[in-house]
Amino acid sequence: MPLLGLLPRRAWAALLSQLLRPPCASCTGAVRCQSQGTRDLSPQHMVVREKILDLVISCFKRHGAKGMDTPAFELKETLTEKYGEDSGLMYDLKDQGGELLSLRYDLTVPFARYLAMNKVKKMKRYHVGKVWRRESPAIVQGRYREFCQCDFDIAGQFDPMIPDAECLKIMCEILSGLQLGDFLIKVNDRRIVDGMFAVCGVPESKFRAICSSIDKLDKMAWKDVRHEMVAKKGLAPEVADRIGDYVQCHGGVSLVEQMFQDPRLSQNKQALEGLGDLKLLFEYLTLFGIADKISFDLSLARGLDYYTGVIYEAVLLQTPIQAGEDPLNVGSVAAGGRYDGLVGMFHPKGHKVPCVGLSIGVERIFYIVEQRMKTKGEKVRTTETQVFVATPQKNFLQERLKLIAELWDSGIKAEMLYKNNPKLLTQLHYCESTGIPLVVIIGEQELKEGVIKIRSVASREEVAIKRENLVAEIQKRLSES
Amino acid sequence: MPLLGLLPRRAWAALLSQLLRPPCASCTGAVRCQSQGTRDLSPQHMVVREKILDLVISCFKRHGAKGMDTPAFELKETLTEKYGEDSGLMYDLKDQGGELLSLRYDLTVPFARYLAMNKVKKMKRYHVGKVWRRESPAIVQGRYREFCQCDFDIAGQFDPMIPDAECLKIMCEILSGLQLGDFLIKVNDRRIVDGMFAVCGVPESKFRAICSSIDKLDKMAWKDVRHEMVAKKGLAPEVADRIGDYVQCHGGVSLVEQMFQDPRLSQNKQALEGLGDLKLLFEYLTLFGIADKISFDLSLARGLDYYTGVIYEAVLLQTPIQAGEDPLNVGSVAAGGRYDGLVGMFHPKGHKVPCVGLSIGVERIFYIVEQRMKTKGEKVRTTETQVFVATPQKNFLQERLKLIAELWDSGIKAEMLYKNNPKLLTQLHYCESTGIPLVVIIGEQELKEGVIKIRSVASREEVAIKRENLVAEIQKRLSES
Repeated sequence: MPLLGLLPRRAWAALLSQLLRPPCASCTGAVRCQSQGTRDLSPQHMVVREKILDLVISCFKRHGAKGMDTPAFELKETLTEKYGEDSGLMYDLKDQGGELLSLRYDLTVPFARYLAMNKVKKMKRYHVGKVWRRESPAIVQGRYREFCQCDFDIAGQFDPMIPDAECLKIMCEILSGLQLGDFLIKVNDRRIVDGMFAVCGVPESKFRAICSSIDKLDKMAWKDVRHEMVAKKGLAPEVADRIGDYVQCHGGVSLVEQMFQDPRLSQNKQALEGLGDLKLLFEYLTLFGIADKISFDLSLARGLDYYTGVIYEAVLLQTPIQAGEDPLNVGSVAAGGRYDGLVGMFHPKGHKVPCVGLSIGVERIFYIVEQRMKTKGEKVRTTETQVFVATPQKNFLQERLKLIAELWDSGIKAEMLYKNNPKLLTQLHYCESTGIPLVVIIGEQELKEGVIKIRSVASREEVAIKRENLVAEIQKRLSES
Repeated sequence: MPLLGLLPRRAWAALLSQLLRPPCASCTGAVRCQSQGTRDLSPQHMVVREKILDLVISCFKRHGAKGMDTPAFELKETLTEKYGEDSGLMYDLKDQGGELLSLRYDLTVPFARYLAMNKVKKMKRYHVGKVWRRESPAIVQGRYREFCQCDFDIAGQFDPMIPDAECLKIMCEILSGLQLGDFLIKVNDRRIVDGMFAVCGVPESKFRAICSSIDKLDKMAWKDVRHEMVAKKGLAPEVADRIGDYVQCHGGVSLVEQMFQDPRLSQNKQALEGLGDLKLLFEYLTLFGIADKISFDLSLARGLDYYTGVIYEAVLLQTPIQAGEDPLNVGSVAAGGRYDGLVGMFHPKGHKVPCVGLSIGVERIFYIVEQRMKTKGEKVRTTETQVFVATPQKNFLQERLKLIAELWDSGIKAEMLYKNNPKLLTQLHYCESTGIPLVVIIGEQELKEGVIKIRSVASREEVAIKRENLVAEIQKRLSES
């Protein structure tokens, strides 16, 4: 997100959506560019994504999570009043008869609705899917109006902080596994935030609004956030200043101890509960060997309304800077927290199911990895083809078709040119440009002798082998490489 | 689709959407059921889906296709007038400022838009994604308003029928691979359909409308289709009867030869072109070894407007009937065809890119496989957890946390209960009910001796091994099983 200055995010989004209306620069004539703020994913994008999503999903599975999916749209009322200030950014569907629908804004609210609807009291699930938000697109930083989220959540009544610690462990495993460079996970607790507001003198009716302002501290300077709180949200200046003292504090478990001694905060029951849980959390994080990655940070607030306990957000300290690479400011790459009240909002009798979870900001991660590959000039193969079927002669289409069907039927990934009489050079060039490692060649001579030539594209070496041994020979070569 | 009688599909959909309005039977109080006509996918659904999609995607990759994705919504104008009678079934987004948008209706039109926008002249791609249609939900037959499509398409100017034959080969590979029982692929050509209409005396302005009627022949009796053509679409009865003679014809390559001799059809240039291509297609299908799966069927019309050449549709002849299993009527499970004009509609200068492709009806396939598993009483594991970390004693949470982190860090899929002091029986029961094969047990004795017990859940055998050998021993056991 660019610096939004003093405009509320929603107003800014509306303004920008006016300014950015099509036609855009790259569009001409009959072709209009695709829906504003979204984009197509090319084969190059898809290869990077597949690799990253594989790593993320295999981590989720390593922790025993089940897969799940929900529809792209929900009843509008399901999504209403769950997201605080951001609710205006929802995509609604047109009323074409039936219920009013909106595109999902995240994967957490649909999960809570699912648990309540199916009366599930315990579940560890992951969900990878698209979500949609009508934000002002800041394309340069990898943000679009349609984007992918990767969520992991643990629902159920358990002993305190054990699932919460596992969520932080998962974030560490994924961020380490992706080799994005150093990272830090900021941790706080909604009860500490609220306790801080209470002891600083924020009226309870303003808690969520002030929480939203504090949440902007990673993108805005304190003086701008303070101005928003005082001028826009009507907070007394001295109350704002008291908050200011707290939100500059961050540190390890020793800061937790220090806050226990804080003369104001220690008077607040909620804050003490939060601090007690954080202390226990740090104990478990130490056993997991990840305490050095975690920072207790009183400026962390998280904008969403539904959090009730521990909250966290992972930031990259820097991206690994290669020669010529600009440092990237990508903001948070993973976040989450505890939301014990959300499921109850959907349950007919209000039964609560405590939940804690995390969301990996894969779009930003895709962007970082793509930028890094671009800088390094790394190329990705967008196909997995292992063998190309070629001929040096005319009128060999029939033989090529028979041969390639044999390869496909043996599970070998194979291509040929869709031409009756392609030139050999064109065929070999295709292999080189697309990275296919092996060519099998059939011509008159080979047909007469009952052999096929196998050519290595890299070494250009060719050997003739018996037709009946072809599949076995290819499989042997592929398993060796 | 249920029998729709004589109502046009759109009117029927509107009527049914009124009748089916919520509240529905399963909804009570505060919980409303999710958006009508869509559904959540449970972990059980997801396991079946993952397996089937893996098989489909690996076939697409075997044929050298690249992955791609497009946004869930397109500009409304992009989708308008591409789908014939079904256009009314589009989901529109509410006008919240900016361009008018609609949810994508299939993956073909977005692909064509992508090719034109990026001036791509040649591409072999697959695309797996959700599409949305406001049809009357016929849930019993596995149809929902949100569903997954798996498309493979070849774009580019190539020698005739080579890519077309590959599309049919792919359909055969996938349907055989999924072991759904016997299947048949009906083939026809839009030019033969149009030629047939012309020689029967259908006015050209009615071609597409009559084509839509013919398309219903797999769900409606000829006399009902005839009535629709005559009473609703104003066709002369004798014209309808002439069509009736043709659409009863189906057979192999010999029927192609027979149609070449047909006194009426052989007078039509378009039809002759189509027949010539089909003859060549059958030659290639024979080389691929799949000609026996293909039937030239003059009743096949395909409802979508954009087809221009060969069209095809795969139907299951019967699902493999197990004891107690009802035969399933699932209709077509894969379909496609050639659409040489679609890309040009999006290109600023109208440049054409010929395309041919196919779409696998995976939702129906999911449904068939799920039904079959249900009948057989087959259970699926919804997690992949390999090892469970247990303790028989109190106050061993810390040791369990250290141990499980070690397993996770070694890439082993591991779980434990989120309780401070769980009972051993509860822990072992969890393994049995979720299918975890191995348990590692740590207690006072083991801690003192520096060992861990490994227990096989199936055999209940336990052995103690040195703590430092634990990961290696687990990996050995997992690789053996």
